[in-house]
Amino acid sequence: MGNINKIILMPDSFKGTISSNEICQIMKESINKIFPEANVISIPVADGGEGSVDCFLTALGGEKVCLKVAGPFFEETNAFYGLINDGRTAVIEMAACAGLPLAGDKKDPSKTTTYGVGQLMLNAVEKGCKEIIMGLGGSSTNDCGAGCAAAVGVRFYNKEGKEFVPTGGTLKDVERIDVSEAQKRFKGITITTMCDINNPMYGEKGAAYVFGPQKGANSQMVRVLDDGLKHISDVISRDVKIDVSQIPGGGAAGAMGAGMVAFFGSSLTMGIEAVLNAVGFEDLASDADIIFTGEGKLDSQSLSGKVVIGVSRRAKALNVPVIAVVGDIGDNLDAVYDMGVSAIFSINRVAVPFEIAKTRSKEDLSLTMESIMRLLDVSFRI
Amino acid sequence: MGNINKIILMPDSFKGTISSNEICQIMKESINKIFPEANVISIPVADGGEGSVDCFLTALGGEKVCLKVAGPFFEETNAFYGLINDGRTAVIEMAACAGLPLAGDKKDPSKTTTYGVGQLMLNAVEKGCKEIIMGLGGSSTNDCGAGCAAAVGVRFYNKEGKEFVPTGGTLKDVERIDVSEAQKRFKGITITTMCDINNPMYGEKGAAYVFGPQKGANSQMVRVLDDGLKHISDVISRDVKIDVSQIPGGGAAGAMGAGMVAFFGSSLTMGIEAVLNAVGFEDLASDADIIFTGEGKLDSQSLSGKVVIGVSRRAKALNVPVIAVVGDIGDNLDAVYDMGVSAIFSINRVAVPFEIAKTRSKEDLSLTMESIMRLLDVSFRI
Repeated sequence: MGNINKIILMPDSFKGTISSNEICQIMKESINKIFPEANVISIPVADGGEGSVDCFLTALGGEKVCLKVAGPFFEETNAFYGLINDGRTAVIEMAACAGLPLAGDKKDPSKTTTYGVGQLMLNAVEKGCKEIIMGLGGSSTNDCGAGCAAAVGVRFYNKEGKEFVPTGGTLKDVERIDVSEAQKRFKGITITTMCDINNPMYGEKGAAYVFGPQKGANSQMVRVLDDGLKHISDVISRDVKIDVSQIPGGGAAGAMGAGMVAFFGSSLTMGIEAVLNAVGFEDLASDADIIFTGEGKLDSQSLSGKVVIGVSRRAKALNVPVIAVVGDIGDNLDAVYDMGVSAIFSINRVAVPFEIAKTRSKEDLSLTMESIMRLLDVSFRI
Repeated sequence: MGNINKIILMPDSFKGTISSNEICQIMKESINKIFPEANVISIPVADGGEGSVDCFLTALGGEKVCLKVAGPFFEETNAFYGLINDGRTAVIEMAACAGLPLAGDKKDPSKTTTYGVGQLMLNAVEKGCKEIIMGLGGSSTNDCGAGCAAAVGVRFYNKEGKEFVPTGGTLKDVERIDVSEAQKRFKGITITTMCDINNPMYGEKGAAYVFGPQKGANSQMVRVLDDGLKHISDVISRDVKIDVSQIPGGGAAGAMGAGMVAFFGSSLTMGIEAVLNAVGFEDLASDADIIFTGEGKLDSQSLSGKVVIGVSRRAKALNVPVIAVVGDIGDNLDAVYDMGVSAIFSINRVAVPFEIAKTRSKEDLSLTMESIMRLLDVSFRI
């Protein structure tokens, strides 16, 4: 009573301004400035994109495995994945070998592949992993994860009956799919796929139309890519007996979301849920005094599965208070309190536009956290 | 322990956006939303300018006395003052009958007078007041308070030995001053003058040069007004035996600051000190759980006598925590904590420029206060 012993930090990144790992560091420093004895546990939340492996390793400890696999253009590239839970679980971010930055100035989602991602999966399985957490996001590809699948033994045949590795531009040539070999290889292995978007695999809200242009597709290529995705969806439906055409998040990472479901029987989950499960949230948090979370903007969109609400919902069941420290606070957020958020603070401390605010966000976060801790310190003496 | 019983609110206004009275109302509403039983005492802080009388009446209760006196051009105008402390203390804002808005489109600080202010003082004394708190600020005048003084019996003579009521343009004609009659009339009456600026009465940082233009003076008139102030300062020095030429705040309200010292033996004090004294701060606050204060911007300037620091210094001696809720928070404020501020929160909750922020400041203040109270509520359960 009246003291802080254990604090858990579970912030999302503030997109484009501070990484979740940096946020944890800044929060911890401010907390320990006022409460030097407090045990602060940092769990930077990964969303599946670039940096997700490091987030898991920071939160849980573990090993980073580095190896050479195929890059976006099948060229050899240096990549990595993480081993946590004493090597039982592998965390892979597909961006490690199929990310957009790796494509450099040759961006072309009709030709890029996720083949290397499958190689990472195989390596993890060979090391004895029983669980794989696959992070989607930041991809250069539009291959429905077919390259990844091919690397682990899924067979794609063209109309001549010849096996090949499809890319975005050649998905339309797939006549038949055989997943039997791959399914044997991954038997007994649980695969969870993290993705923080809801787009379906094709159509006007699908992978090609929404994300194709930023990966280098012109409007003609977008149509070809979208046709390819629709085609492979039909073949999957017939040969794998799963309809992935409408799955929310199926469009993630160039429709690799749909591919993970189709080829690996994976579930798709929000990053925050994957992190909460991986860290054993209920055990970890049940004796915590307070949890700090945060994201770049807390608004009505946050109510569906984003980090702050994801943390708060599960903390509420434990009766542990959650303080949200965010960039901007939207309007009409009373529902947020019902979902377990105890209080919300914005880090903005001068009235300036975002372009200026982002340059000072680390200092602002530090001061805001310090003020919150000072207020808590005061409250214990009331 | 662990509950909120008594909260004191002592905010300054957020200049140009929310009055201190409105701030108190918004704060009280947010507090009682989370702590319905809390006893919230609102003391909106006056700075001496327009609204000061209402602030004192809100804080202390009392009576508003309305009467007709001379306006800026000696025309009859409706004015008022406040009676507090069971009628023992009068609170007057000079802007009530000599304020710039009353001059309309005829602004002319060479001709305007503070005569009506003296009439308000006389009325208060006739009612038996033993103390007068005079608020300076928002004036249309530059008469060194000579009009006010003349109304209560200070005599100003020209070189023909003829008594007259000087205005800004005729201060230069004052040859001799006789304060004896007025001093008799005000014997035993304590006069405190509130002003929140440090400008001296004349010179390049004086009343005419700094504030003359906004009262309607062109550059030629500014020189005449400044010469008049320098002249009356010399006559005061000789006839009243007080050197008011360098007093910080002497330039307030068209050098009425200097006049209050010279003609009434008044002290000049920051608004916050006058309010703290008038409300009997130490008695009121000694059993408070927490004090909320605030101002538009908390920065290094705030360290010298502004509201937040003024409140905090005296609260620190009582060991009562002070939370500052402000518009913007400046940098390098560690000294603020040493001066008794427990924690600082900005009401900004989206990164937008001030022009936009000010239009939403009331909602932002409300949400920020609610979050602070929610955090306190949570802390009592840790």
